[in-house]
Amino acid sequence: MDNLNKNNHEHINEHQHDHNHEHHHQHGGVKDYMTAVAEYRKTFASKQDVIDKTPDPAVRDMILRMEQIGCSTAFDRFDTQKPQCSFGLAGVCCRICNMGPCKITPKSPRGVCGADADLIVARNMLRSLAGGTAAHGAHGREVILALRYAAEGKLNLPILGKDILINSAKKFGLETEGKTINQIAIELSDVLLDDMSRSLPDEYKTIKAFAPEERQKVWRDMDILPISAYHEVFESLHRTNEATDGDWKNIMKEFGRCGLTFLYSGVVAPAIATDSLFGPPIRKTSKVNVGALEEGYVNIAVHGHLPILVSEIVKQGQSEEFIKLAKEKGAKGIKFYGICCTGLSSMYRYNGVIPLSNSVGAELVLGTGALDLWVADVQDVFPGIMDVARCFKTTVVTTSDSARLPGAEHYAYDHHHSNISETENLARKIVTRAIESFTERRDIPVFIPPYEVDAEVGFSYEYLEKEFGSMKPIADAIKSGKILGIINLVGCCNPRVVYERAIVDIADKLLENNILILTNGCASFPLLKLGFCNKNALRKAGDGLKSFLGENLPPVWHVGECVDNTRSSEIFGGVAQELGVQLKDMPYGLASPEWANEKGIGASYSFRLMGINSYHCVYPPAHGSENVMNFILDSSETLGSKMNIDVDPIKLADKIISDFKEKRAALGWDK
Amino acid sequence: MDNLNKNNHEHINEHQHDHNHEHHHQHGGVKDYMTAVAEYRKTFASKQDVIDKTPDPAVRDMILRMEQIGCSTAFDRFDTQKPQCSFGLAGVCCRICNMGPCKITPKSPRGVCGADADLIVARNMLRSLAGGTAAHGAHGREVILALRYAAEGKLNLPILGKDILINSAKKFGLETEGKTINQIAIELSDVLLDDMSRSLPDEYKTIKAFAPEERQKVWRDMDILPISAYHEVFESLHRTNEATDGDWKNIMKEFGRCGLTFLYSGVVAPAIATDSLFGPPIRKTSKVNVGALEEGYVNIAVHGHLPILVSEIVKQGQSEEFIKLAKEKGAKGIKFYGICCTGLSSMYRYNGVIPLSNSVGAELVLGTGALDLWVADVQDVFPGIMDVARCFKTTVVTTSDSARLPGAEHYAYDHHHSNISETENLARKIVTRAIESFTERRDIPVFIPPYEVDAEVGFSYEYLEKEFGSMKPIADAIKSGKILGIINLVGCCNPRVVYERAIVDIADKLLENNILILTNGCASFPLLKLGFCNKNALRKAGDGLKSFLGENLPPVWHVGECVDNTRSSEIFGGVAQELGVQLKDMPYGLASPEWANEKGIGASYSFRLMGINSYHCVYPPAHGSENVMNFILDSSETLGSKMNIDVDPIKLADKIISDFKEKRAALGWDK
Repeated sequence: MDNLNKNNHEHINEHQHDHNHEHHHQHGGVKDYMTAVAEYRKTFASKQDVIDKTPDPAVRDMILRMEQIGCSTAFDRFDTQKPQCSFGLAGVCCRICNMGPCKITPKSPRGVCGADADLIVARNMLRSLAGGTAAHGAHGREVILALRYAAEGKLNLPILGKDILINSAKKFGLETEGKTINQIAIELSDVLLDDMSRSLPDEYKTIKAFAPEERQKVWRDMDILPISAYHEVFESLHRTNEATDGDWKNIMKEFGRCGLTFLYSGVVAPAIATDSLFGPPIRKTSKVNVGALEEGYVNIAVHGHLPILVSEIVKQGQSEEFIKLAKEKGAKGIKFYGICCTGLSSMYRYNGVIPLSNSVGAELVLGTGALDLWVADVQDVFPGIMDVARCFKTTVVTTSDSARLPGAEHYAYDHHHSNISETENLARKIVTRAIESFTERRDIPVFIPPYEVDAEVGFSYEYLEKEFGSMKPIADAIKSGKILGIINLVGCCNPRVVYERAIVDIADKLLENNILILTNGCASFPLLKLGFCNKNALRKAGDGLKSFLGENLPPVWHVGECVDNTRSSEIFGGVAQELGVQLKDMPYGLASPEWANEKGIGASYSFRLMGINSYHCVYPPAHGSENVMNFILDSSETLGSKMNIDVDPIKLADKIISDFKEKRAALGWDK
Repeated sequence: MDNLNKNNHEHINEHQHDHNHEHHHQHGGVKDYMTAVAEYRKTFASKQDVIDKTPDPAVRDMILRMEQIGCSTAFDRFDTQKPQCSFGLAGVCCRICNMGPCKITPKSPRGVCGADADLIVARNMLRSLAGGTAAHGAHGREVILALRYAAEGKLNLPILGKDILINSAKKFGLETEGKTINQIAIELSDVLLDDMSRSLPDEYKTIKAFAPEERQKVWRDMDILPISAYHEVFESLHRTNEATDGDWKNIMKEFGRCGLTFLYSGVVAPAIATDSLFGPPIRKTSKVNVGALEEGYVNIAVHGHLPILVSEIVKQGQSEEFIKLAKEKGAKGIKFYGICCTGLSSMYRYNGVIPLSNSVGAELVLGTGALDLWVADVQDVFPGIMDVARCFKTTVVTTSDSARLPGAEHYAYDHHHSNISETENLARKIVTRAIESFTERRDIPVFIPPYEVDAEVGFSYEYLEKEFGSMKPIADAIKSGKILGIINLVGCCNPRVVYERAIVDIADKLLENNILILTNGCASFPLLKLGFCNKNALRKAGDGLKSFLGENLPPVWHVGECVDNTRSSEIFGGVAQELGVQLKDMPYGLASPEWANEKGIGASYSFRLMGINSYHCVYPPAHGSENVMNFILDSSETLGSKMNIDVDPIKLADKIISDFKEKRAALGWDK
């Protein structure tokens, strides 16, 4: 795999320089990345580490069960992939054109085209961010289209978030007086889609309407104001083509533009559209974890990110008609469970959708054998689930043209959404199929680890404003030191790190140090499952935080699915505004300790664009370029923020605490 | 580098199956790709092979010269990159998420997410096509914007292709009566930009207006009609995200949609916009190759793909004012030379822009030391040129926000084209800088291999229609067998193959067999330089072809830059229509023997989408998946076309000849 150690440092060509010019072979840099990557790789977790140290006993039980029955999981496959390629880990592998593949080594300091390590690493990073932007953006587009189709009457869904819709429209400067909700919804979708897709240079309206003035100036000065999400993704691919942009700094400028579209069309826009269509989340108490699975019911899991069809599936599945049908077939009823973000967004809005696991653990949930039907839409649906589903005869249904699985049944919207009006019909077919599957699966052995817990969920700016009257009480508690700072603890899970351990360790340490935690997405699952979103977790909080929270609030506030980073940002923004302090100066942070996919790059960068530091236990593939790595790690001169990485979660937590203390000291808040 | 041979075939996990399920470990597949890739890699050319066998003596002289002075080139770097990574070559390396990198081997038949070789290869192929679409699409957008800016008066360029503009507008069903040219240009740009960027599902108007009915039905039946270029690129990135689309067949369906946008927004649209703005090409005779470089002049090379600023640079550089200034500084005058497609498109439209080399040979051209200034815009500008430019003190200027080079001076349009009205000013600065550079470079040694030749260029559908009265004479010659068939011989150059050799060998063989050749882009350079576009080359043609061509036409018709595949398609379409035969049944082919970059994937696939077979000496990175490789190679059931690959150019030419004979036989054309 790795010839770095085998090759001597030698040049094929003799250099007989008869004139003055520089060669940038970066041999020093090459050696640095070899050592750094080798050290980094040593820290990767093994399946045995996960069995020994993962914090959720249900996860441990299920991994052992899967081993017993001979079903491989992501943890097995991660071990089997070892040792991971050094060039890939360092970011110096280039497969962009077909003259390669090329890789930067002491022997080959340039690719065929002449690209050096800086350029290759930068191009790979930009393409990754573009991938993440496309993912969150596609999610955003689906919800914006749904809002529009609902307003046009093509999609039979009520528009439930009227206040949010009208307020958002007003922020965009749209006239709302004398217009119907449907008219406003269509106009709002026009603006959001325009920011999503324009090709002519023009103002990005979501930034204008939603970004703080101070940030807009920072971004203008950096020349990173974008044209549209589609455009910047297209342009990111364009300039990273073979022999196009040859300047890593210019590529990282595009990284800034693409990052802003990730944030505003990939995160803010879907949040606006989702809340406008489905209404704001409601604070409630939910059961969590696989112990909540009940045999004898028609058990349906919803997995992915798109709420539209799922809302109808849950509605139909909870209808008397289908419950009656299920009972006729011998079931006690129909129950819904949530995986990944579809699970979280459903949990918020419909009673009785019980979150079980993030994406990495989905195979384990299937391994219980308790699920009759699994509805998968897009993103973070490991193809590995199909092997487990086959083992347990769980029917898997795919619902989006963007994501199919060999062996799954497909009841889906087509590429052009020409069948959007058949939503109810699709949902009814899927629930019917679940009941059929129930009848076909009576002999399947079920193994359910007995762990479940209650979690308080559904936090948002709106809820807090109602609960506290304004953001002032939170602001006061921060200024006074009762709350040391606020962390948004989010992101994926990644087998490089002991599954869910880093998130829990960091949460423990931060709570003890009076740091309030917001959470969403995959990283929120361990916090949900291990009781951090339960009021019993108040015992984990330091005295200051505990005194602020009182008796009605858990110390970790769950704000939703991954695009609900918007809610965290709104809370950050609201509190900072109350204090008259800029975001970059507040004791705030974004931690995604186990980030893994391309969206994770964008999520982390989005907060840094806002001037908020980020904290991680996983490195980006940039060890091969000191320049690009430094650019990513330290944007204090431009954005006022840094990316902090430590493979040790406790050290990372210590860094968060010391950074917060430093920010507080600079604000003169501490005695 | 390659541990395939080191690892035993072993499973970390014992499989104790206690129920019925399949595992798809594809060990057979893994072994197959190992052998195939190892065999394939053995065929890669070396620098010594290039020195021994490249057909242009000027290239050989320059490679030896570069070696003498110690300047490395792409040929050195290709050797230094050996052995290329097996996983990358086979397409089974996945760096899409940060849980990896993963690779498919006998030991690790699945990635961490569960992706198998089919899925990984398919995702990588789709991302490559998306990259190519973004490149050609960005080129297209620049020209469409320029047409629009010219019509709006923001860009001071005349609209020279009024007939093409009006005819194109009519094809789109736009009303042209009573409208000014500027109004029509703006409306046309609206349609083209709409197809480029819409996010709401709607009809793709360029397909509706320009694709044959028969093809539209084929694509509709395959469910590959696209929404827009931006959308399909975005969607291609979305569905190839970690754990999104898990079905390689569904990914290859998106490959179809993305391919159609490559063709219609990346190739057809820029061709329409370019000809509308700059007018159609004019048939003319041009000098070609480095022997045409003249010492004592202010020598300016233009390199890349965008014609807008270049048109003004050439205009200014040929003005009396600047010639006078150059002479005042001791120069004999100002001369322009063309590299890659900017060179070709300029050659067509302005007198005295002499094409010298495609992108792979650009370093060699710089190595002559004869160039004072090098203007680079986007795509196929190897970063390696900067080292050579430094050697020879050639000033390199970059002119697009999308592509900078460390060490180059930047006189460019910004990201938002806010300075589009300063085109003249930018051009004047650049020409001024060239004259300054001339004065600073008097002591630089110059080495110019003495090879130059005349070439007939500027062929197009319009020219042929005028020349022959209609397409009928060409159609008759094909039907009668004077012309066996027509090949579009295009594409990049790739150091895997002996530089420019395959193109020349194939051309020789095809001409001998009475196959008429159309050419454009990088592959056209060896044909230009080695006299194939000169009437003297008639001696290479078989008797039938010779008798058809008469005395006024060379046997290779040069139609322009890479997006001018549109011209080849128009000629293909016009002749087929004359004969009442569908494209897929005609003795036509697309050969890009040395294709190398992501655009090359799209160019080849575009012709297959039209039902035309493609021919290559370079494999796509798909050896790792028999399924995906077969899908790419054989779309006879769906599109009616195949991709043919043979690393031996002569065998490839034989295949073209036998395929053409088969088509002719099926049409009943041969005795």
